[in-house]
Formats: sequence, structure tokens, C-alpha cells
Amino acid sequence: MISVTKDFKMIDGGVCAAAGFTANGCNCGLNKDKNKNDLGMVFSKTLCNAAAVYTTNKVKGAPIIVTKRHLEATGGKTHGFIVNSKNANTCNADGEEKAQKMCELAADVLGVAADEIVVASTGVIGQKLPIEPIASHVSELAAGLSPDNHGKAANAIMTTDTVQKEVAVEFEIGGIICHMGGMAKGSGMIHPNMATTLNFVTTDAAVSSEMLQKALSDIVKITYNCLSIDGDTSTNDCVLLLANGLAGNAEINADGEDYETFKAALYTVMMNMTRMLAKDGEGATKLLECTCFGAPDLDTAIIVAKSVIRSPLLKCAMFGEDANWGRILCAIGYAEADFDIDKVDVDIASAKGTISVCKNGSGVDFSEEKAKEVLGEDEIYIDINLNQGNTAAKAWGCDLTYDYVKINGDYRT
Amino acid sequence: MISVTKDFKMIDGGVCAAAGFTANGCNCGLNKDKNKNDLGMVFSKTLCNAAAVYTTNKVKGAPIIVTKRHLEATGGKTHGFIVNSKNANTCNADGEEKAQKMCELAADVLGVAADEIVVASTGVIGQKLPIEPIASHVSELAAGLSPDNHGKAANAIMTTDTVQKEVAVEFEIGGIICHMGGMAKGSGMIHPNMATTLNFVTTDAAVSSEMLQKALSDIVKITYNCLSIDGDTSTNDCVLLLANGLAGNAEINADGEDYETFKAALYTVMMNMTRMLAKDGEGATKLLECTCFGAPDLDTAIIVAKSVIRSPLLKCAMFGEDANWGRILCAIGYAEADFDIDKVDVDIASAKGTISVCKNGSGVDFSEEKAKEVLGEDEIYIDINLNQGNTAAKAWGCDLTYDYVKINGDYRT
Repeated sequence: MISVTKDFKMIDGGVCAAAGFTANGCNCGLNKDKNKNDLGMVFSKTLCNAAAVYTTNKVKGAPIIVTKRHLEATGGKTHGFIVNSKNANTCNADGEEKAQKMCELAADVLGVAADEIVVASTGVIGQKLPIEPIASHVSELAAGLSPDNHGKAANAIMTTDTVQKEVAVEFEIGGIICHMGGMAKGSGMIHPNMATTLNFVTTDAAVSSEMLQKALSDIVKITYNCLSIDGDTSTNDCVLLLANGLAGNAEINADGEDYETFKAALYTVMMNMTRMLAKDGEGATKLLECTCFGAPDLDTAIIVAKSVIRSPLLKCAMFGEDANWGRILCAIGYAEADFDIDKVDVDIASAKGTISVCKNGSGVDFSEEKAKEVLGEDEIYIDINLNQGNTAAKAWGCDLTYDYVKINGDYRT
Repeated sequence: MISVTKDFKMIDGGVCAAAGFTANGCNCGLNKDKNKNDLGMVFSKTLCNAAAVYTTNKVKGAPIIVTKRHLEATGGKTHGFIVNSKNANTCNADGEEKAQKMCELAADVLGVAADEIVVASTGVIGQKLPIEPIASHVSELAAGLSPDNHGKAANAIMTTDTVQKEVAVEFEIGGIICHMGGMAKGSGMIHPNMATTLNFVTTDAAVSSEMLQKALSDIVKITYNCLSIDGDTSTNDCVLLLANGLAGNAEINADGEDYETFKAALYTVMMNMTRMLAKDGEGATKLLECTCFGAPDLDTAIIVAKSVIRSPLLKCAMFGEDANWGRILCAIGYAEADFDIDKVDVDIASAKGTISVCKNGSGVDFSEEKAKEVLGEDEIYIDINLNQGNTAAKAWGCDLTYDYVKINGDYRT
């Protein structure tokens, strides 16, 4: 139903699955837990075409500003990025200076120009970023760059995440095998809008800057932008897509079959990372996947699916395994889109089966016993059929639990 | 700073503080707890001018539809209303029929026409409303109508509310003493949009239908619509304002000093009820009042204040008494309005004092010890100065706690 879906071979390697990309991560001391990395780097000797999508929050982290500036200066080319967790380097008077310094430190040890490196940070807002721990560890970080160390980089970007998030696929362009892989972080403050939390995708496919950006914008709209953990749009959201062309395919520089294949691979990587982010939402015990079918257009489908996924009341009901479908109808009803509520059907499903709870906008009888069984699973599907068109979209989220409150009641300490 | 503020004498009497209004409430059996009322009635022998504002949710409770129809049929005149809790009579195929029946039952025992009575319901969505308990108690309910029983009606509309919410004031129009009082319910599913949860206000002032509606719409915008408990806009939100004219003042039928006084009285009643609703938010331990000063216009001030009040991350931080002001800046930053984030100052205050946490969009040092003391109080004030205009607005909310999750994890049972 999502037209870009294809079956690809899933592979290992995360952000280093594509040829020519190396990575590393270490603990430089920003995080007091020495077993948790807090500084990461991803590098391609071959200069990459880069596409990016950033947060729409007016408060923009200093790294976002510096990354934008560097990509503008180089016409969208980069060798890679340096990234830290534990401190977002946002709302600090010296933020841009520090973000620029991170790029310079990395560029120096990598032997490239400072504006050929971009930067990202995630963590607490409004605390000054100490540069010394980064300066004293950047040589070690670069020395350890290897295709095998993708996991160390994925670990470095985690904040309240409980699992590392890496996905990679193999795909074919004109008979040439290409690879694409990504890593993501994010657990709270997630309600992406034209961008998302930190997500990095690399590929060895050759793709023009223009088509790379087009594919990224299209796929962000139906993956990361359809994710909501708590309705809070972060100040540091950023998706970076780097293509170094080492696979040797003829460059994709126009619409057509090759572009569609590339876009489908990108959807697979980003959709799977989105699901991982939703499932690892702060305090979450359940992944919620809401599909809105039968919509008159894509925007309506997205708006309805996201409205349901965002509802705190529904999220609590799912935590309580309570089939309180009135809350689904309520959230469909306040979605800011134009449709007829009296045609709407709703099913709730999981690996244990499906219950139909609403037909034509009114409740239908269902077995509470069966509902308990269905809702006992840890992946819950909410299927909404508007019955007024042929378009569909998905949104992803999670339940709202005691642990979300606990984690966020005292985040800074 | 809110231009409609005046000092009025607060009085007792709730929805019966105004001359000629009687009320009653009883338990008819919808609620299994016999000590909790679930059916209420408010009545004025003198026909009232009525103004109303309803939910913008596409899913509209059947009582909303019937109330609208009756007020249209009578040209905005009514004798009063019947209201039940425990069942929202929403998303039921027979909902309108049942809501109409409630009006007919009430009208019969009151000796008025059915369309001179309006109706409201609140509770679970999508369960059929049994009419028998209402039919068998409506005579008893009408027989007990009295100015003294306003509390019984206020009790009847409560759902997960932990306290009854009544406010009343005395005010003077052209040398004549007038009265106005209200009752409200609502604890969860509160994020009013052009309307709110159930709120009833009565007055003995004489006001034309047109000016009554104008005042209600203006005041709803800066009171109930600036309240957010959880971001969920209910299907049954409704504010009713009834004016029976028994005070004997010259009817207010145009702008001017009398109208401004009336509007200020309405602001006082509705603002105080809004604060009570926020403070009694599901699971809440703290009232949050956010004031946005220095805004270029009213809409910007409202949007910014509401964005902050709605943030789940900020709500958790307030529960944890953690001065994580970065979350305030973040929520200001994603507010959908046009302003310069780099001019923004933020203070956090309570009865224990004020801490300045942000100047010109960047953090300033503050004492964590003092912050703990300030945040230990149960009423917290977040003061945002955009420094780019002269308009202000307030929004009200509460913290997000374990108990919110608990209450909503299993609401139906």
C-alpha cells in the first residue's frame, strides 16, 4: 500500500555497510559512565554528495547552524561528521564557536578542510559544551576509524535510548550491487516536523545532489515525520544522507526506475529505523503502528494517523491494554483535515488477531476477552479506513507509561 | 495586563448565584457509586438568552447536536439544561434520539417545551446510554430544584474530577447589582479548541443574545481555550452561558462601559474555573500558569503560552521539580507563530520567589538550590517575555504524573 515498498536483502554493517565508509566512537568524558560512548565519527575518504533535513524548531542547535553553513559553502559536499551526546550545545552564547571548533578538530586529524566536515550534538539544552574532552580524544577517535566500528558510533549517539539502532540493505542499480545503511538515536522529545532526531544514512550508490535531496525529503515525510513519541519537536533534529558513489553505478540524476529503486531502499532503511525509534520511545512497553487507509490524499492520511499516534489518552489506554476505541475516534475527530467522520471504520490488531471496534463512526460489539488478548502483545496495529479515497499512510509511536514520567521527571541529573 | 481584569466581589452560590436559577443533582444509577451524583438539572422559570460554544472535534457528542438544534429552533432561548456524567452518549447510532429524549423528559416535568431545554453528557465514548435510569429519576430531580442545590448539580457533572468547581461574582451594571456564577467539570481529554469541556455559566444580567455570544466567544478564547491538560480535544466540549435578565438592568445590547464590565465579570468567572480545571487535571500535583508578555499580538501570545503548557517533557520536569528550562525554550521554539527567538527571556516563579533562567534566548546561571525551593510549591508560574510587542496572554495546565498514566490506563472499568 505504501508505493515505495520493495523487498530488499537486509544486511549488517549499519552506517558502514556501504563501501568506503568508516566509523568510530569513544567515551571522551562528557558521559560519566565510561562504558557508554559519547563521541562518534563517520568518514569517507571519497567526498560525498550530502542531503539534509533539519528541525523546524525556531530554537536551532548550534550544530545545525554550522552544518547548514558548511554544506552551503561546499555545494553540498562532505567527508563525514563528528557527533556527541550528553550535551545538545543549544541555547548557549558560545554554541556556534564550539560547533565550528568540533569540525576543525575533526578536519585537522582527518586531513580535510573544516567545511568538509559537518557536526551534530544531542543531550541537555542550555549547558555550555566543554570542548577539552573532545579536543583530547579526537586523534584517538580518528585513529580507530574502521568499517567494523559502526556499532561504536551508533552507541555514541544514544541518550535515553535503550538499544542501538542500525539498519542496512543491499539493492541493485543497473546490475550493480549498492549498499545503504543508517544509524539513529532518539527516545524522547520526538515529534519530528520536516526533520527528526539524529539520523545518519550512508550509501555507496552514485546519486546527484539534487536527486539525493529529493529522495530524502520525500521519504522523511512518510517515515520520520510520521513518528511521535511525545509531541515535543527537538531543537537538534537532523537527518543526513551521504552518498560517495563508490558502488560504481551510473549516477542517478533523474526520475526513473533507478531513482525509484533508490528511493525504495531509502524507505526501507528509514522506515525500519523509525519503527525502532518508536519501539524504544522513553518508557515504552509497546510499539503502536497506525495505518490510515482509504484517504482522499496523502496529507489527510498522514494527519489522521499522526493525530491518533500522538493522543496521550490513547497511549495510556494501550499501556493499560484497554480497548478504549472512543479515544481513537476522538483523535481522528480532532485531526485537522477535511473528511467525513461518519464513514470511518477502525480495527485494532496484533499477532494475536484483529478486533473490529467501529463501523461508520459508531461502535460495534466486540469480545473484551479477545481484545485483552490482542492488546497483550508488544506491537499493536491500529487500522483506520476512512472509506473516502485510495491513499494510505502510516504513523508510529508508543504507549505512555509510568517510566516516561520517571525518566523525564529528572532528566538533567 | 489582561485588559478585561477587574476586581469583583467573589460570592457563593455557583450556578444559582444569579436570581431565578435553581438546580439539583442526584444519583440515578449510571454511576454505581451511590454517593456520587450522575444526573443534574439547572432551571430558570424566566426564559433565558443563551450563548454557546461547542467542540471543534469532528466527532460531536449527540447532546451537542441536539443542543445546537434546540437553540436554533428557539432563536437562542432556553429555560435550562439536563446533564449526565459517566456516559458521553457519543458514537452511538441511537445517540441523538436518546439526547432528544432527555430534553423531552426534563421538559415534561418542568412544564416547558422540549426545545426550550438543552442537554449535555460526559463520560465514556461509544457505550449506549441507558435512558431508563434517567426517565425514572427526572421527576425527583425536578421536584428538588432549589437555589441551594447548586452543589448537587456541580457534583453530578464530575467524572475523574477530584473537586467540585464553582465560582460566582457580584458586579454592577448602571447602579444595579447583578450576579454571575458557573460550574465546570473536566480533568482529562482537555485541550479545548474554540470550546472546552462542560462549563455552565448563569447570570441575572439582561444582555442581548448577540452581545452574550460575542462576550462568550471573546472570553473563551483567553480562558478555556488556553487550558491544556493533555492535548486531547474532547468530543463533548461545551460552554453554555444563560442570562435571564432578572437583575433588572437596562439590557446590554451594544459595546460600551456596561458591556466591558459584563465581559470582565465573565472573564473572572471563566478564568477562575479554568485555573480550577488545570489544578485538578488528571493526576496533577501542580498548577502551571504560563504568561507570555511582550508579544506582537494576542494570537502569538496565546500560541506561545499554550505550546509551553502542552509540552509533556516540561510537564514531567515540573512534576520532578527540575528547572529544565531548555524544555521551555524548545516548546517556545516549535510554537507555530512568527517571532524572534533570540530576544526571549524566561523566568520561573512561585510563592517562594523567582528565578531568571534565560535571557535573549540563551541560558543564564541560577542557583539550583533556589530553583528546588521555587519548584517545590504547588502553583508554578512560567513568565515568558518575547520582548517584541505589548500584548500578553496566559495559559493554564498541570504537571504530568504517574497518576495520569494510572487513571487513563484503565478508564473504562
